[in-house]
Amino acid sequence: MGGDHGLKTTVPACLSALKKFPDLHICLVGIAKDIEQFLTAHKTSYDTTRLSIVNANEIVEMDESPALALRNKKDSSMRVAINLVKSGDVDACVSAGNTGALMATSKFVLKTLNEIDRPAIVYAIPSLDRKTKKMNPVYMLDLGANVNCSSEQLFQFGIMGSVLAANLKGTERPRVALLNIGEEEMKGLDSIKQAAKMLQNCDHINYIGYVEGNDIFSAKADVIVCDGFAGNIALKTMEGTAKLIADMLKDSFNNSIFSKLAMLISAPVLTGLKRKLDTNQYNGASLLGLRGIVIKSHGGASAEAFETAIYEAIKEIKYNIPQKTQAQIERIMQS
Amino acid sequence: MGGDHGLKTTVPACLSALKKFPDLHICLVGIAKDIEQFLTAHKTSYDTTRLSIVNANEIVEMDESPALALRNKKDSSMRVAINLVKSGDVDACVSAGNTGALMATSKFVLKTLNEIDRPAIVYAIPSLDRKTKKMNPVYMLDLGANVNCSSEQLFQFGIMGSVLAANLKGTERPRVALLNIGEEEMKGLDSIKQAAKMLQNCDHINYIGYVEGNDIFSAKADVIVCDGFAGNIALKTMEGTAKLIADMLKDSFNNSIFSKLAMLISAPVLTGLKRKLDTNQYNGASLLGLRGIVIKSHGGASAEAFETAIYEAIKEIKYNIPQKTQAQIERIMQS
Repeated sequence: MGGDHGLKTTVPACLSALKKFPDLHICLVGIAKDIEQFLTAHKTSYDTTRLSIVNANEIVEMDESPALALRNKKDSSMRVAINLVKSGDVDACVSAGNTGALMATSKFVLKTLNEIDRPAIVYAIPSLDRKTKKMNPVYMLDLGANVNCSSEQLFQFGIMGSVLAANLKGTERPRVALLNIGEEEMKGLDSIKQAAKMLQNCDHINYIGYVEGNDIFSAKADVIVCDGFAGNIALKTMEGTAKLIADMLKDSFNNSIFSKLAMLISAPVLTGLKRKLDTNQYNGASLLGLRGIVIKSHGGASAEAFETAIYEAIKEIKYNIPQKTQAQIERIMQS
Repeated sequence: MGGDHGLKTTVPACLSALKKFPDLHICLVGIAKDIEQFLTAHKTSYDTTRLSIVNANEIVEMDESPALALRNKKDSSMRVAINLVKSGDVDACVSAGNTGALMATSKFVLKTLNEIDRPAIVYAIPSLDRKTKKMNPVYMLDLGANVNCSSEQLFQFGIMGSVLAANLKGTERPRVALLNIGEEEMKGLDSIKQAAKMLQNCDHINYIGYVEGNDIFSAKADVIVCDGFAGNIALKTMEGTAKLIADMLKDSFNNSIFSKLAMLISAPVLTGLKRKLDTNQYNGASLLGLRGIVIKSHGGASAEAFETAIYEAIKEIKYNIPQKTQAQIERIMQS
């Protein structure tokens, strides 16, 4: 039910994903009659054995207080969906709903892994390896769940991110870095300096030091750890800069008849670039550190983008991310 | 002497500025024999009555510890130049040198204005008003001088930024915002929430609320206040994103013979865009809150960019920024 466009994006995305993955089962959680009506109205054919509907009578609004949603909406589509993860009826939950409510509800219902204080939001950021000229996304966390983080929490994010990158990128020893405002050891917040020591001393983590904001995009690291405040500032700044350049590019090409002509000729090149940077291909943030898989789609995601978030869930199920993370944490705590 | 290219950029920039501003006097501070040699070797003609050389025997290295530079290099070009501001022999100092050392030395020699705890680094960030389709730069501070900031310091940055924007942008009531990770009042760090109350209660400041990272570029505010950690993360992320897109654009246009042709045709449009986003036009950060004008040029600045930093100094001299800031602070403290 969530996101800016509700069923119009989530349902077509699910139907498309079902076609592509013959083993996939999807359970649509929400106002059952609305979902049924939508499916009927759109005369979509689908494998009824692999698509089920679970009714939920309430909806968490996009701007609702997470604490109130958690307390008052026990029959919301979000809560019911996360309950299904908890009971083991489903392997993962994907939502385009209210991020704060999704985080609060997931944490309350699923709980965090042993030795993990708080879950973090992680997302694969486009990053370009200038040597190979290939895109090499970097997993950045936390992107906004935790405003203040202790050094212990940053250390835990390092472990969580490292397990995710090792499995999803297939890198044996993913390079883990801390986001800071200088590369020198003495710089930055105390929590970061202390976390650096902890990461440095951990044999199970390939810690490479500090990186700065501009290094996010140069594929220097596979995992970048930061508190949710810095992470969210970086993520939003990134979005804003990309939009500024896109708008200016558009304006530049609309300036004169000559530049409109240039635009026509360059269109395929620019479309190729747009596709590379497309949020449709970079949708699906993971709520990491929980005893279960919860994926957050961008609220404004298109059906195509929401489908990408479903694939993110499939990958995390395939690689058993929560279990592998728990095992790694226990290994580290015992050593 | 400072920056990545030393005299090769600073001297030509000064000579060009002297030509453009008939009232301008420039005092080159550094190893006198090197400067003289450079001027002779380049056979440059200049008005000797408006260009003088002041000798300094030492140089602060770009990676030197600010504390050590301050303690041990009392005859560095940086220190001597700032001493000239202090004595009133010059109206402003422009440097492409070590930022930390420039800040520490300026603070030690010039001192901060009354009621200002710490100086901040402020910089005009390119921002696009989507309604008028015009660029409308936003003054953002602090960009890295102060890792942790109290609410009082953020409030002071609000006053300082507001005076700067009012004068340099010619806006009567510049819109002042706080950088945060959500627009809701409850979100973010305690220091930010407290600073919001202080700015809200101040009649002399046109406080408009919180903005997020993506709002930096949408001309929503004239001044954006943040601590040096968040500001530096945002600034560097911005640089990194712009570089990523530029590199991908270049690669896209080099992909095939067709796209190379498209590149040739689009070149003037892209050059126009590049000029709009050009760091040459956005060079010259100000060290605000001092009893004197100190401008920091990007270390890697070209001669053209260094010249822009000189113009920034000229503007701040013209508008008497330190005096006006002091007057406004006193007005606010008395009200």
